[in-house]
Amino acid sequence: MSPIADPPVAEPDAAVAVLRARLAAAGVAPSVLVTDADILEPHLRDWRGWHRGEGLALARPRSVPDVQAILSACHDLGLPVVPQGGNSSMCGASVPASGRPPAVVLSLSALDRIRHVDAPGWNLVAEAGCTLGAVQAAARAAGRHFGLDLGARDTARIGGLVSTNAGGMGVLRYGAMRDQVLGLEVVLADGTLWNGLRALRKDNSGFDLKQLFIGTEGTHGVVTAACLRLHPPETSAASLLLALPDLAAANRVAEIALRRGGRALSALELVPGLGLALAAQVLGGPLPMPENHAWNVLLHLAGEEPVEGLAEAIASAALEGGAAVDGVLAQSGAQEARLWALRDAFSEAHRLLGLSFRFDLAVPVGRITELAEALMPPVLRLAPGARFFVFGHLGDGNLHVSIAQPEGADAASFAALRPAIESLVHEMVWRMGGTISAEHGIGQLHREEIALQKPAEELALMRAVKGMLDPKGILNPGQLLPD
Amino acid sequence: MSPIADPPVAEPDAAVAVLRARLAAAGVAPSVLVTDADILEPHLRDWRGWHRGEGLALARPRSVPDVQAILSACHDLGLPVVPQGGNSSMCGASVPASGRPPAVVLSLSALDRIRHVDAPGWNLVAEAGCTLGAVQAAARAAGRHFGLDLGARDTARIGGLVSTNAGGMGVLRYGAMRDQVLGLEVVLADGTLWNGLRALRKDNSGFDLKQLFIGTEGTHGVVTAACLRLHPPETSAASLLLALPDLAAANRVAEIALRRGGRALSALELVPGLGLALAAQVLGGPLPMPENHAWNVLLHLAGEEPVEGLAEAIASAALEGGAAVDGVLAQSGAQEARLWALRDAFSEAHRLLGLSFRFDLAVPVGRITELAEALMPPVLRLAPGARFFVFGHLGDGNLHVSIAQPEGADAASFAALRPAIESLVHEMVWRMGGTISAEHGIGQLHREEIALQKPAEELALMRAVKGMLDPKGILNPGQLLPD
Repeated sequence: MSPIADPPVAEPDAAVAVLRARLAAAGVAPSVLVTDADILEPHLRDWRGWHRGEGLALARPRSVPDVQAILSACHDLGLPVVPQGGNSSMCGASVPASGRPPAVVLSLSALDRIRHVDAPGWNLVAEAGCTLGAVQAAARAAGRHFGLDLGARDTARIGGLVSTNAGGMGVLRYGAMRDQVLGLEVVLADGTLWNGLRALRKDNSGFDLKQLFIGTEGTHGVVTAACLRLHPPETSAASLLLALPDLAAANRVAEIALRRGGRALSALELVPGLGLALAAQVLGGPLPMPENHAWNVLLHLAGEEPVEGLAEAIASAALEGGAAVDGVLAQSGAQEARLWALRDAFSEAHRLLGLSFRFDLAVPVGRITELAEALMPPVLRLAPGARFFVFGHLGDGNLHVSIAQPEGADAASFAALRPAIESLVHEMVWRMGGTISAEHGIGQLHREEIALQKPAEELALMRAVKGMLDPKGILNPGQLLPD
Repeated sequence: MSPIADPPVAEPDAAVAVLRARLAAAGVAPSVLVTDADILEPHLRDWRGWHRGEGLALARPRSVPDVQAILSACHDLGLPVVPQGGNSSMCGASVPASGRPPAVVLSLSALDRIRHVDAPGWNLVAEAGCTLGAVQAAARAAGRHFGLDLGARDTARIGGLVSTNAGGMGVLRYGAMRDQVLGLEVVLADGTLWNGLRALRKDNSGFDLKQLFIGTEGTHGVVTAACLRLHPPETSAASLLLALPDLAAANRVAEIALRRGGRALSALELVPGLGLALAAQVLGGPLPMPENHAWNVLLHLAGEEPVEGLAEAIASAALEGGAAVDGVLAQSGAQEARLWALRDAFSEAHRLLGLSFRFDLAVPVGRITELAEALMPPVLRLAPGARFFVFGHLGDGNLHVSIAQPEGADAASFAALRPAIESLVHEMVWRMGGTISAEHGIGQLHREEIALQKPAEELALMRAVKGMLDPKGILNPGQLLPD
């Protein structure tokens, strides 16, 4: 059940009638614009049911000229436009911001062609509505590998992945979405098309304009297609779970793994015993090691050459030096799959803890153990008995922290502590030079907080760029930047 | 000898007196501003002697507040400011543009501290005036590796490397300078300081502002320091020279090397027999193989684990499949050094050909052999007997093309062909979706041509961003963007 009440959808009004006439005049098929409340409703609320905004209409363009006509008309009419892909945002960025005038939801889902795959050129061009899974499959069919992967691969779409600079599981080896983008096609706020679909690895001919549109959550323009780089296929993989004597040893394991594993290292995850125990409860089946240690590191190696020897070398070095006290090297596909199934079940495992406050934090690499240790005492002073479910990506300084209600406690009274705990965690992260959004984005969820994270000069520059690209403020208003 | 005449330096005039007073009032030491012609002169001309502009004064700030005071004053007074690092630009971007009012040259060379090295955090903070060599050494001393390398390592400075998004020899493995930058400290046109010196690998808290200043040749702001990412040290290396049956076979070798070598592959160079012959003439000593083939590929592998076996596997696969007809695997440090000394001598080897027109082109990966083959017939129709010295980076689609005068021909009459040959080459590259500046930049050398390369919408966006960041147009005027 959604925690948000269900207000009636705004009736199509005069604005919609004028918009419809404008689109007809531009040759856009009438069925592109839909105002039926039943169809519109799921596009107004995010998948977790945390956010819901008002919608004027749903626009489902079938071509790039359709997108241009819609933006041109909305720009002239001053109508807000919310670009939407798979609507899998973690911060409410893909639905109209709540408390705002009703918006036109611009769904790019029908622009879902892979325009071409250039295997010798190690790139492909995908339209904004292609799912991540479709891009991965197209790369595979051409004997190539797409570098980004995340759980929502069959929901998340390329336009949204670009607009949020998505991270996921391969960041250590391949970088985030920004690193996959060679070129972009973008429709600007006023309907102007910028064709920047270049397939070049090197181009130092001035300002790299595509950077304006990556990670800006649809507030700077609407991405309609992307030229994406491809990598050699991975032909070998190995996974390794190492149990640690204590949390600080995670840094020693990371040093060994990064130095020895280099670019073959594609995951380096801090994994708590609590998480393994809860995940085993969710999935059934045994724990990976006879004794469940409080802290563990889960590694994944992949490459074009066999990597098993490398995994063994890392395990030996960690065990011999005392950085690890026990370990499991996945010897088969099934063993490996089990390790990652446990890790993937963390999200569901949270439910067993009752109410929890969840954070997507990043600090400089090497400081996440320090953050984890520093957080606990002050949080426990605020919320005695609170339980910590702390896991993260050691290789890129990204710590997911969940603070759950004390066992058997009352969820409502714990809920009242949210503002105080959030302030405490955020301020600690900022003091360490970190960010409160490592990979999930800002959207409507965190837009007030970034004014506390960023210096005034930076906010002023962000606002100036936004004002230059979208002077009427029609693109995804109420998102990313504080008012 | 410089091909440019030697006009007198503009005398310090009223503007300098006012500037001096402003700086004194801001507490800047008087010696920061120099107007002595002998001292100023080398800062007004580029290292190749192709470009020379007019200078009002040389400003050598000793601190970031000095930089702020200088920009604040120049902004108020409307004085042009040309940021300068090692003055090793390949396109005249680091000296005042010719034919413009005299500028204040802002040399960042005295800001040359490594502010800190964070080995467990895999990053360091270097001021703009640090040489690349100093950064490499600081990384090495901490048991880390800096990913960028190029011949001008003891001249080129961090501010300039960031501002030109420098490429060089490790791009295939580590990416260009953009990929090394975690955070920046920038002084804006009006003297405002933006401290964006974050050390985060992941930060999705809105528009990644540092992208505005990378590769924009000092026209958007003055970089005063950078937080740079570090990599594991390379403990193993191998080099391999493969002789090809024909030019097209380069693509087959590239496919084998990229698939087998993966991230261990750090160079994949197309090397012509002509280049090896000329380089051997320059350096003395034998050619690497008994027979000098017209086309070759030179590979470099490096990594944290031994790579010799990988080099052998690539050589075997290429020779067995007929993609290569001969090969040399460098068995020792001296042999390897000789191979790269031959490659590094290409620049000097050009001189043996007399006058040549040189291009820094990029097309999509996999198309550089097509570009090389398509170029020759029409150029030969324009300039019968012209000689081609074509080499490049197969892994990132970057082709360096030199078109040299026919043997024994008259240099002056060949020189007259330059505009026609340049137009022909540039138009062919643009038709292939390429760029006329892969890694060297635009500066004053190519700024008119990019209006032909880029769509009008892109130029309009570039101008809008520039106008927003530098409304008075004081930062490096006459560079990067056409008027």
